Amino acid sequence: MVELIRTKRDGGELDPDALKWIISEYTAHRIPDYQLSSLLMAIVFNGMSQDELGPWTEAMLHSGEVLDLSEVTKPKVDKHSTGGVGDKISIPLAPIVAACGVAVPMMSGRGLGHTGGTLDKLESIRGFTTVIEPSAFNDQLNDIGVVMVGQTETLVPADRRIYALRGATGTVPSVPLISSSIMSKKLAEDLDGLLLDVKVGSGAFMKTVQDATTLAETMVGIGASHGTPVTAILTEMSQPLGRAVGNANEIAESVDILKGEGPTDVRRLTVLFAAEMLRLAGDDDIDRATARVMNAIDSGSAYETMIELTRRQGGDPAVIENTDLLPQAAHEHALLATRGGVVTRCDAYDIGLAGVRLGGGRATKDDIIDPAVGFLIEAKVGESVDEGDLLVRIAYNDKAKLKSALHALDNAWEIGDEAPSTDDLILEEIR
Amino acid sequence: MVELIRTKRDGGELDPDALKWIISEYTAHRIPDYQLSSLLMAIVFNGMSQDELGPWTEAMLHSGEVLDLSEVTKPKVDKHSTGGVGDKISIPLAPIVAACGVAVPMMSGRGLGHTGGTLDKLESIRGFTTVIEPSAFNDQLNDIGVVMVGQTETLVPADRRIYALRGATGTVPSVPLISSSIMSKKLAEDLDGLLLDVKVGSGAFMKTVQDATTLAETMVGIGASHGTPVTAILTEMSQPLGRAVGNANEIAESVDILKGEGPTDVRRLTVLFAAEMLRLAGDDDIDRATARVMNAIDSGSAYETMIELTRRQGGDPAVIENTDLLPQAAHEHALLATRGGVVTRCDAYDIGLAGVRLGGGRATKDDIIDPAVGFLIEAKVGESVDEGDLLVRIAYNDKAKLKSALHALDNAWEIGDEAPSTDDLILEEIR
Repeated sequence: MVELIRTKRDGGELDPDALKWIISEYTAHRIPDYQLSSLLMAIVFNGMSQDELGPWTEAMLHSGEVLDLSEVTKPKVDKHSTGGVGDKISIPLAPIVAACGVAVPMMSGRGLGHTGGTLDKLESIRGFTTVIEPSAFNDQLNDIGVVMVGQTETLVPADRRIYALRGATGTVPSVPLISSSIMSKKLAEDLDGLLLDVKVGSGAFMKTVQDATTLAETMVGIGASHGTPVTAILTEMSQPLGRAVGNANEIAESVDILKGEGPTDVRRLTVLFAAEMLRLAGDDDIDRATARVMNAIDSGSAYETMIELTRRQGGDPAVIENTDLLPQAAHEHALLATRGGVVTRCDAYDIGLAGVRLGGGRATKDDIIDPAVGFLIEAKVGESVDEGDLLVRIAYNDKAKLKSALHALDNAWEIGDEAPSTDDLILEEIR
Repeated sequence: MVELIRTKRDGGELDPDALKWIISEYTAHRIPDYQLSSLLMAIVFNGMSQDELGPWTEAMLHSGEVLDLSEVTKPKVDKHSTGGVGDKISIPLAPIVAACGVAVPMMSGRGLGHTGGTLDKLESIRGFTTVIEPSAFNDQLNDIGVVMVGQTETLVPADRRIYALRGATGTVPSVPLISSSIMSKKLAEDLDGLLLDVKVGSGAFMKTVQDATTLAETMVGIGASHGTPVTAILTEMSQPLGRAVGNANEIAESVDILKGEGPTDVRRLTVLFAAEMLRLAGDDDIDRATARVMNAIDSGSAYETMIELTRRQGGDPAVIENTDLLPQAAHEHALLATRGGVVTRCDAYDIGLAGVRLGGGRATKDDIIDPAVGFLIEAKVGESVDEGDLLVRIAYNDKAKLKSALHALDNAWEIGDEAPSTDDLILEEIR
């Protein structure tokens, strides 16, 4: 192991056997944490080539059980987002794609830091469980084409341990380590295709298009070396997606999307992503795929799939039918524009952080979240306001938490005299 | 700790309190190995400034007991070599300096890898022990001015643990880590001055004058920040020092030096170093210091001090009086010149490695060494030989080990037609 650490430290390339050996020995507790952490730090500095990342990720994904979806006859496609604020796309997306006849075995995460998590949002639906039996998993996927669950403990144990070690050793920000962590988990889902939403901007992990492109290309390359088609789409995350930021309120906005309503940006991304997932599932005519997606929404079949998904996972479908039944906060605070003009800034990071302070997110893994609190944004970038107009409605339950959240919002909005030149919502597609 | 690792990873500077905190918490087992190893790897890449090295080394040297030599009234000066082949200088040097009235509380190490160790060499003197009681330490220093022992377990425990961790995590080659390791141990000896012999060349850790200069300047800087005058002298180590490479035979060569005999290069360095140590002890006239050194040799007082040192540490003085009583190997093999000409290469690394294979050194820390085996070099760089002349006499006890050693010597000697331009023995002095 010392020899391998030295090789990586000195800028050399590790061969496939060495990389597989490291993962299997570490998983078996035969390589101590202190050796792996020093290797990880050398990787932070010297990176990993695509030739290294293939076998490394392959070894990680085979470190535990791998999903066996061979009984599922439909093509299987999943989507992963690198995380943003107000990013509820997965929730309407999965039922839409399922309604189009593609199986979506979606394994999501929880919110951590300033970004939200799909599991937390789903759990604001009364009764909804994100843990289901392995046998029920395949049945549900065959029956309704979609499951939305958390990752099981037996899947990719190597990533679980390496992820924790990285957090404790300052070795988080590394494109190859991030890429192999994401891709090992996704490829363990036995997929025919994967869509990656790589967020760029203040509310995302990657702040520049250049960094996000590197990450996207690296993950697409890992997919290629595994033989799984992967599309990465870079999307803008300097302001939140849609109007709702929270948990319950993001479910409500997701239901709007399934009804053909809701904010334009969320609708646009959802349709784009769904069509791309149909393409990954084998439909090579993107116009036809888009028409199938629109039809699944307009016909109500996507909405019906969401109702069915909720029922199958123990949730109360009445909540989807009437989103007023979602948890509601006791109080509302209105943040108003202090001058008239055009909104030039509505910062995703600040709003995400305010959401955590409000109780809607997690500062640490063990925090319990309050599903009812959150933001309904009334004024986004490029929109005009008069002095005293609403910028955002803040649903809250605790006055001290509101105060702390408001502090985070001090510089979240900026109002100027001229409309800013805004970035495109969709920045780049990498296949 | 994660925050501190990140700072170092991102090229920032750690403040003195943070550095002291890391060492004290690690020594107290409150920082896990996996965090320290990732910090060490970040240091390998990003280095440490002199402002960081001062408090870091200070914290290390205070991680355990520190020698209290306040009862010793003489000035106290020690010497440390970064390690070479045939480097027995410490053995004649310490008694010479002691004979000049300066106390030498010398703590040395054992051989590891291709380089020899002072303790191993001393132990080839029948009965000589390199472990003495703390109380006897001060008494002996007061009485005869010199002790030559191993480092005690209670001195600088932080270095002991960090050194072991570095070996296991590929974080050995780092100038700040090497410097702080050496200097923390030496400064814990409560010295008034320290001489560093920084070896340069194939047989040394530092292969170039530039790297050795950086190491020397770093160590001198640490001494300055501690308030201890340090002189570093860069010396040549592309061929072995002197004629003898081994353990018992290096004692014999050392006794020759104490009698004013022995190889010119060893004599020259010994006198230079001894005079510099007198300078560090307060004699600011280097010519006078040199004269004092020559007189200690010529008068026999240095030799007498060696006899006394041997007696005080349990050794048999008869061995010093008659070095034929040192352990002798059973057999001798002669390596001959295959052509006539001038020796252009007599490689220190190859000969050091051959010495380990012969049984005279350690490949791992637990190897037991054979004090009797070794080399007597007959042809060094610049010396003329005829075909069939002796290059080296090899004293051995085991035929298989001899074979393995000879293999390491395959390219150790080169004979050409013209005398090579040789490097100076003494390359640079840094104060």
